[in-house]
Amino acid sequence: MKKLFVVGIGPGAYEEMTLRAVRTLQQCQVIVGYTVYVDLIREHFADKEFLTTPMRQETERCRLALKAAEEGRLTAMICSGDAGVYGMAGVLLELAAAYHQVEIEVVPGVTAAVSGAAVLGAPLMHDFAVISLSDLMTPWERIEQRLRAAAAADFIICLYNPCSKKRSDYLRRACEILLEYRESGNLCGYVSNIGREGMCSKICTLEELMEAKTDMFTTVFVGNSDTKAVNGNLVTPRGYLL
Amino acid sequence: MKKLFVVGIGPGAYEEMTLRAVRTLQQCQVIVGYTVYVDLIREHFADKEFLTTPMRQETERCRLALKAAEEGRLTAMICSGDAGVYGMAGVLLELAAAYHQVEIEVVPGVTAAVSGAAVLGAPLMHDFAVISLSDLMTPWERIEQRLRAAAAADFIICLYNPCSKKRSDYLRRACEILLEYRESGNLCGYVSNIGREGMCSKICTLEELMEAKTDMFTTVFVGNSDTKAVNGNLVTPRGYLL
Repeated sequence: MKKLFVVGIGPGAYEEMTLRAVRTLQQCQVIVGYTVYVDLIREHFADKEFLTTPMRQETERCRLALKAAEEGRLTAMICSGDAGVYGMAGVLLELAAAYHQVEIEVVPGVTAAVSGAAVLGAPLMHDFAVISLSDLMTPWERIEQRLRAAAAADFIICLYNPCSKKRSDYLRRACEILLEYRESGNLCGYVSNIGREGMCSKICTLEELMEAKTDMFTTVFVGNSDTKAVNGNLVTPRGYLL
Repeated sequence: MKKLFVVGIGPGAYEEMTLRAVRTLQQCQVIVGYTVYVDLIREHFADKEFLTTPMRQETERCRLALKAAEEGRLTAMICSGDAGVYGMAGVLLELAAAYHQVEIEVVPGVTAAVSGAAVLGAPLMHDFAVISLSDLMTPWERIEQRLRAAAAADFIICLYNPCSKKRSDYLRRACEILLEYRESGNLCGYVSNIGREGMCSKICTLEELMEAKTDMFTTVFVGNSDTKAVNGNLVTPRGYLL
């Protein structure tokens, strides 16, 4: 069998990769990925052949990787964060069913929920829900249903893809839904460009979150009813007797 | 200010640590942790001073670390997986408020939801909820409410702490609740000892999950209504046109 690795590179900084991810990329001949993420790691793997496709060409990117692997070149497809959380691992496994000589190995990485939480403090210390606000492939009604369920059951909520050029008001719409269940002072936070140049983070209330300037590189956190600010950190207590 | 690092070491294998976690531990003089996790990494950091406490002595462990840091020794507290997901980052940030000379830095790691998913394939490709079945510090009613909310809104569900010696039937009780909302054939999977000696994983139905033998080192995944098996992998499609 020929191996095709799908590797989560973490939030972007080289040092946030796992040793396993680094060693996997070092041993490969070909690295395939979205242009932006390939540029984040290119300098550290300068001797590799890089194949890139722009956004929205995910299945084409997977086929590029599968073909390279089938031709006998040891290949890795990279994803930001973790390959299995809104990444390419799923579609790659599905497409690979037609490539009988190629076996997929998923190399996990630090997803934005985890790396963003570390920047803010410790908001994810209790049960949490991860929801993407992108309705490119998910009907908005389903997203709304999940926001309502998570808000009502007092989950900490982590929002991926809070907005894009075409969806500039989605975070506001999500906040309006959450405010039906939560106090306006419910503590929240968001982090942009986690572990990369231009990283910035902010702690705010749910009401203030409605007006937050976010982009597709922002991860948003909505605390639960216990979440509080401790010395400038967003912390959800787990219940230890202190 | 004196720094105290709280470091997620990932699922357990040395190579699943991030470069940043490795470098952080290398530069520290003292490493503090739960005995089992310290033993996982001890050989790679043989020149360090190790301070350990057994399970259930989490706040004492935090105070050990804070004291070592306050005394001027560069110190890291380690957690399995990520420090911010049911880890020590939260309680450490709370306790640190009384140690004015000590500043906490959270170094994120690969949490079991992510590392376990990679072993099974790609179950977490869509919105998911992470729920701990431990009722040591959370009333069971709240856990049950979250199970119901996540099941009804078709989240993929990842269960931490599915059982322990004292809670041997909790996974069964959780499955009974989920079966009120989900088909008995709903695909699931579980992984024990992720990335460590004795790792094993299994894909099964929700009905079969009721009888699964799990322990405190098992992570459980309950797929959503789209989750399927592809060549022996558990995959939740995200909606790409293939």
